[in-house]
Amino acid sequence: MNTFGSLNEDDVLARFYGVIPAGGVGTRLWPLSRAAAPKFLHDLTGSGSTLIRATYARLEPLSDGRTMVVTGRAHRRAVLEQLPGLKNANLVLEPEPKDSAAAIGLAAAILHHRDPAIIMGSFAADQVITPVETFQQAVREAVYTAAEGFIVTIGITPTYPSTGFGYIRTAGGMSIAGAPSAQAVAQFVEKPDEETARGYLEAGGYHWNAGMFVAPVDLLLKHLETNEPVLHAGLMEIAAAWDTPARREVMRRVWPTLPKTAIDYAVAEPAAAAGDVAMIPGAFSWDDVGDFAAIGRLNAASETGNLTVLGEGARVYAENASGIVVSDTKRVIALIGIDDVVVVDTPDALLVTTKAHAQRVKSAVEHLKASGDTDVL
Amino acid sequence: MNTFGSLNEDDVLARFYGVIPAGGVGTRLWPLSRAAAPKFLHDLTGSGSTLIRATYARLEPLSDGRTMVVTGRAHRRAVLEQLPGLKNANLVLEPEPKDSAAAIGLAAAILHHRDPAIIMGSFAADQVITPVETFQQAVREAVYTAAEGFIVTIGITPTYPSTGFGYIRTAGGMSIAGAPSAQAVAQFVEKPDEETARGYLEAGGYHWNAGMFVAPVDLLLKHLETNEPVLHAGLMEIAAAWDTPARREVMRRVWPTLPKTAIDYAVAEPAAAAGDVAMIPGAFSWDDVGDFAAIGRLNAASETGNLTVLGEGARVYAENASGIVVSDTKRVIALIGIDDVVVVDTPDALLVTTKAHAQRVKSAVEHLKASGDTDVL
Repeated sequence: MNTFGSLNEDDVLARFYGVIPAGGVGTRLWPLSRAAAPKFLHDLTGSGSTLIRATYARLEPLSDGRTMVVTGRAHRRAVLEQLPGLKNANLVLEPEPKDSAAAIGLAAAILHHRDPAIIMGSFAADQVITPVETFQQAVREAVYTAAEGFIVTIGITPTYPSTGFGYIRTAGGMSIAGAPSAQAVAQFVEKPDEETARGYLEAGGYHWNAGMFVAPVDLLLKHLETNEPVLHAGLMEIAAAWDTPARREVMRRVWPTLPKTAIDYAVAEPAAAAGDVAMIPGAFSWDDVGDFAAIGRLNAASETGNLTVLGEGARVYAENASGIVVSDTKRVIALIGIDDVVVVDTPDALLVTTKAHAQRVKSAVEHLKASGDTDVL
Repeated sequence: MNTFGSLNEDDVLARFYGVIPAGGVGTRLWPLSRAAAPKFLHDLTGSGSTLIRATYARLEPLSDGRTMVVTGRAHRRAVLEQLPGLKNANLVLEPEPKDSAAAIGLAAAILHHRDPAIIMGSFAADQVITPVETFQQAVREAVYTAAEGFIVTIGITPTYPSTGFGYIRTAGGMSIAGAPSAQAVAQFVEKPDEETARGYLEAGGYHWNAGMFVAPVDLLLKHLETNEPVLHAGLMEIAAAWDTPARREVMRRVWPTLPKTAIDYAVAEPAAAAGDVAMIPGAFSWDDVGDFAAIGRLNAASETGNLTVLGEGARVYAENASGIVVSDTKRVIALIGIDDVVVVDTPDALLVTTKAHAQRVKSAVEHLKASGDTDVL
């Protein structure tokens, strides 16, 4: 039920503010994605657009310039280059990563300080979504639902029993004007083992948690205050100083003291337990580009024969070869008689693996870190 | 029978002069081996020595500084760096490649002009031979046999029915002092198909033609004159001018006019038909490093687990990987979950193939040539 009754629809949607947390190195996409050039700064779909640019563009029809980006200081220049429409006031730079609760919480606190009526929608910078119209419609429903006093997650209908995502268990439909598909959320559940995941799919009522949510900033901050009072206090102090000359001093003093935790633990899970979370099912196709096998799936259009080639000016010669080549150099790459191979060629590091082993790239990166080869990470 | 009867052994061996034709790009070893840095300039065995240096060192106990190298002009500096003992007078530079008959014939003609009694031994710069003592003993036998008026090839005992080499059919033992294993040669036969090759091994009396031969320079030139009179005349004119100030002018004028042909057709085969060819069986292990699979075989010592790694300062991380990595860069190379792979990493070109497809590298190079990617060839 829309408790506002006669409220103009546009008044609700006008409260929307996009937030794009752009963090995470994307270790499974090493050596393409790395600390200095993380996943969101790459065009991994052959669309001609980097992931962060596509994320921003996807929100633009909803936010009309009201989009904030939270990222690491090192990426300031790259992000501004990618998003010429981004207002300087909406670029929030972290001096060091403090995990998602701090990043998203800071955006919420700053926005709340500017306008406590804002409904923010947080969408990671490195996901691939099509068609965008279906996504936007889901966000609109989420905004209407959030306006009723909910933290609203957008759940992805699972297509296979993934053990790589957390799940959202729903508890029946809600009756919210403008949000016909809104459902109550009973619980967030951790990444399951395969048997459990198969059970979820058979049982129905489970969706993947893609980390997308829409929430009134005051409600989000209320839960943050309850569950992470130190973090909340720090973020509120920073937010109060943000649009003043004191920002630099306060940020420098407070940020390093903030506890590191994930937004799931700090807000989403306790809010669900309190009955404050709803879900809009996302009937769009969604991919978090988790590994190079995903890049193969997402780039069918770049295929020559059975080989997907990514990279401007790639010079690839293939003979009886299939798989994925990501070329970040101008080198000639010759592939002969090899199937389902993954070759990622960058100026200082080369990865050769197979589609089947794509998930194990992360362990290679961990090994390189341990062995001191940090120059290429 | 030694027709010289009482001749001092040392007088015969003192007539020996090593000749190392250092040509051939080694296309099947692309992109490591290429026009600017051919196979013989690489250390392909992990011995710490390039192939040409090892070839020179193998001859040194026999030639004692009497070794000549014939190579392309472009390799002058690299060859002198590799062979500090090489006399300037013994470095013969070709302005352009004219095939093996011209290269080896020019060496014969120059040596003949200096001393017509010379017995030259021609050994390609890019072969791997162990143990060297067994090789040297075979060469000594070949020199004694050559002194009796034969062109003497050193045949390799076949270990499998190779279709990649020509064969030498022998016709019984000879009786030559100092050369107990000398055999008469009936015929050189072209690279056979596999069935024929299998027949050769069953029949016995066949050896691989490794292109190694020892011959009195006057006998070699006599056969060249009979079979390739234009080539012979040109080479004799160049040789007469070689150690004079006219070398440059004559070389520039005559060399471009010389016909291109292989020493096998111009000398070895017709000489065999004339009954002038003998063979010493080489009871050593021999490899022409024909492809990357050979590099794997020759570098068991460089193996870490099932992976052979070649290259100074190679930074390779492997997880469940086997095969061969040749690193000609300082890049980090990560291999994950891939078997029998061949990865050759050079500054401007990368090859990824499998051991089983190693022979097909040549066709990739031909394709690159045809498509105009000659910068990396």
